[in-house]
Amino acid sequence: MHKKVTKRLHGAAAKSTRKTDIRKPKVGTRERLLEVALRQFAAGGFAGATVDQIVAAAHVNKRMVYHYFGSKEDLYCAVLELMYERLAQLDEALFPLAGDPATVIREIVRIYFRFLRDNPDLVQLLLWENLQKGKYMERIAQRSERVSKSPMLGYLEKITEAGMAAGAFRRDLNIKHLLINLIGLCLVYFSNRYTLSRSVNLALEDEAVLEEAAKHAADLVIRGIAA
Amino acid sequence: MHKKVTKRLHGAAAKSTRKTDIRKPKVGTRERLLEVALRQFAAGGFAGATVDQIVAAAHVNKRMVYHYFGSKEDLYCAVLELMYERLAQLDEALFPLAGDPATVIREIVRIYFRFLRDNPDLVQLLLWENLQKGKYMERIAQRSERVSKSPMLGYLEKITEAGMAAGAFRRDLNIKHLLINLIGLCLVYFSNRYTLSRSVNLALEDEAVLEEAAKHAADLVIRGIAA
Repeated sequence: MHKKVTKRLHGAAAKSTRKTDIRKPKVGTRERLLEVALRQFAAGGFAGATVDQIVAAAHVNKRMVYHYFGSKEDLYCAVLELMYERLAQLDEALFPLAGDPATVIREIVRIYFRFLRDNPDLVQLLLWENLQKGKYMERIAQRSERVSKSPMLGYLEKITEAGMAAGAFRRDLNIKHLLINLIGLCLVYFSNRYTLSRSVNLALEDEAVLEEAAKHAADLVIRGIAA
Repeated sequence: MHKKVTKRLHGAAAKSTRKTDIRKPKVGTRERLLEVALRQFAAGGFAGATVDQIVAAAHVNKRMVYHYFGSKEDLYCAVLELMYERLAQLDEALFPLAGDPATVIREIVRIYFRFLRDNPDLVQLLLWENLQKGKYMERIAQRSERVSKSPMLGYLEKITEAGMAAGAFRRDLNIKHLLINLIGLCLVYFSNRYTLSRSVNLALEDEAVLEEAAKHAADLVIRGIAA
């Protein structure tokens, strides 16, 4: 089952980064525009990508942007929704994980590391949106529960309560803070990899270093929440 | 001693954000330019701030930028160096902390949280520099050890070795990964506060929530590294 989860996630990542795929006629104009816009907004933020650049790279007529999305702002919001949808799918792909609570948490950390490694565009979009003070996210959060609530929250609560009931986890854990801790331990490795690589003198992009980092983070959390 | 450290750090933060201070005649033109440039580059990144905007806000002649720094790129690099200098000073201010290793680690987390809360400009500059793939940081790292090496690394090694020697800490800790873990646990709360506030439905800017978050992160690390 774990292999299946990893494969499914990896498949999604590969589709979004391999350039050859997006020119296949099977992919609709709207989807192609979205994928190209996601890459370009991830690289330059809302202000750094123009509609002209996006339509040129997607090989579609400029009118299609207005037809499918309305405006550049709406296109950017659709990209953010796609980002949240992928993050939600990642979380939901983890729900079938079974086993003792500590093993499940270790697996979550391992899969988060792989997903973030395979989806640098999503990491960058998150940074941009925070630098923009969550302006566009607030707009789409009004209409989408995928954006306004992390699916991981309820799942983590279930795992943690099982761990507490079994006497394996500390009883003073706060699920919301624990989720922030988990995200911080995984995300920083990718979001701040350029400055961190320098500061600690480690090649963070190296596969062996990444495996070691995921294990170190998982060990810290599992020991950190143990009763 | 802990109070003195906090006060010193808070003093530095207040100086960099209070607008009234930077117009005092005592502050030199170069320093005033740097402080204004730091705020403006933090808000908009390298591309988002123009030299015209910076000199207008600093009330200095445009020629002064070229006189003191050379170019816009050099001014940006000087801002990054200032950021690294402040981060290094933060770390060095922690060195006199004494007590048992677990208490020292708790105190580091608490002070990191306060520093990041008081210095949103530095948090944003870090994000920008990573979005720019560490381009400017690499340039200044060649000439400055303050940039190319975290002063916290050696200090953390000392604390951790003391903890191991006392039998209080796990022997399989890796100092570099532990520092990344520590930074992740503290930084994410501020760097991703807009998206996280929404995802977990918590007012992260609330002072009580922040105290709770710092305690939760510190508890996780201390339990996580314990033997």
